[in-house]
Amino acid sequence: MMSQSAKPKAVVLLSGGLDSATVLTIAAQQYDCIAVSFDYHQRHASELNAARRLAQRYASEHRVIHLDAGVLAGSALTDHTIKVPEQSEEGIPVTYVPARNTVFLAHALVVAEVADANDIFIGVNAVDYSGYPDCRPEFIEAFQAMANLATRAAVEGAQVRIHAPLITLSKADIIRRGVELGLDFGLTVSCYQADEQGRACGVCDSCRFRRAGFEQAGVADPTRYQRR
Amino acid sequence: MMSQSAKPKAVVLLSGGLDSATVLTIAAQQYDCIAVSFDYHQRHASELNAARRLAQRYASEHRVIHLDAGVLAGSALTDHTIKVPEQSEEGIPVTYVPARNTVFLAHALVVAEVADANDIFIGVNAVDYSGYPDCRPEFIEAFQAMANLATRAAVEGAQVRIHAPLITLSKADIIRRGVELGLDFGLTVSCYQADEQGRACGVCDSCRFRRAGFEQAGVADPTRYQRR
Repeated sequence: MMSQSAKPKAVVLLSGGLDSATVLTIAAQQYDCIAVSFDYHQRHASELNAARRLAQRYASEHRVIHLDAGVLAGSALTDHTIKVPEQSEEGIPVTYVPARNTVFLAHALVVAEVADANDIFIGVNAVDYSGYPDCRPEFIEAFQAMANLATRAAVEGAQVRIHAPLITLSKADIIRRGVELGLDFGLTVSCYQADEQGRACGVCDSCRFRRAGFEQAGVADPTRYQRR
Repeated sequence: MMSQSAKPKAVVLLSGGLDSATVLTIAAQQYDCIAVSFDYHQRHASELNAARRLAQRYASEHRVIHLDAGVLAGSALTDHTIKVPEQSEEGIPVTYVPARNTVFLAHALVVAEVADANDIFIGVNAVDYSGYPDCRPEFIEAFQAMANLATRAAVEGAQVRIHAPLITLSKADIIRRGVELGLDFGLTVSCYQADEQGRACGVCDSCRFRRAGFEQAGVADPTRYQRR
């Protein structure tokens, strides 16, 4: 069923970082977007403020879903006693959050079914985040297959589609795509340990990928850093 | 990695109803069980009290995970303005909660990965609840396939198994199995609209399946009813 809007609805997972902001602007070309963010006492609460600003500009609705603080424990992103690494590690990073994208997509599926939306967008990337199992194309495909057996809409014939438009792009390509679509990257926060003003640390994995991406894309970096 | 206990760990989804209590006693035969329950402002909060009593007796640990009250909205189980039906409906029941088992299993997967458990138990049943898409064997299989691509443990070679030991059993068979294993069904609450004392309404789908099950199993029904 179509909403009153001319565009069909889609659910877009929006962290407030560079990647998910680009996904939102991509999705907004064709869909009326419901942005979904999660509050799980993550270190980078300034990302959530960024998500609010981005949703106001590019989405028609923003849902902030509270996750049980105890559930996603056990990684450097939620456990303040684990130090965020300043150099890339071998294998799966300490910033990996157990089954996080499964939990995020499960909630997106609920929001999609209630809103009568068949399309879910997620900004996973298999290039920079090759160490995260749930950023791989095979995970996204398996989640989509499961989703198409999970819901009333699917049983009644709808096809749920999980879109991961950044999955094979480099950070520079993602930035170029965002620039093409008029995305204001100054609204985004990527840093794992940004301060309360949203200023980035400049040294964590996420900051280093982001900074290198702007350099490679030949685009001025609008990020505000705590130190350079 | 094995825990200090002689048995391997498993995560068991425990609502406090008859089915999940039976699953817990089945799992406890072979596993050291972490029971997981959800608090999502469901009508039958007395079920959660039942879950606590059951976990104390049959599990080594009980995690109650709070879900965002707004997320699982839109069904008779969470929306108090929709009347719980007193007769079975055609098709998918009004008590269907969008993508509920996907959200429940996603959280169970997080708990399992953090606890180093590879086995997850869920009390879905495709006989009495044939109208629920996420109670079918094909859904459980698809979730398991997805889970085996989602986690660090899976990437490192572990096999996640989703066990649904009741999936093809009748309610009478489930009750007989519980009796065999010494389960005290008086601890369980199945009713969609039990009162604060845990007394069942006797007329909702869940009560009618349960009552008929005890009759067919030839087992005395320990349920306390508000009316008969």
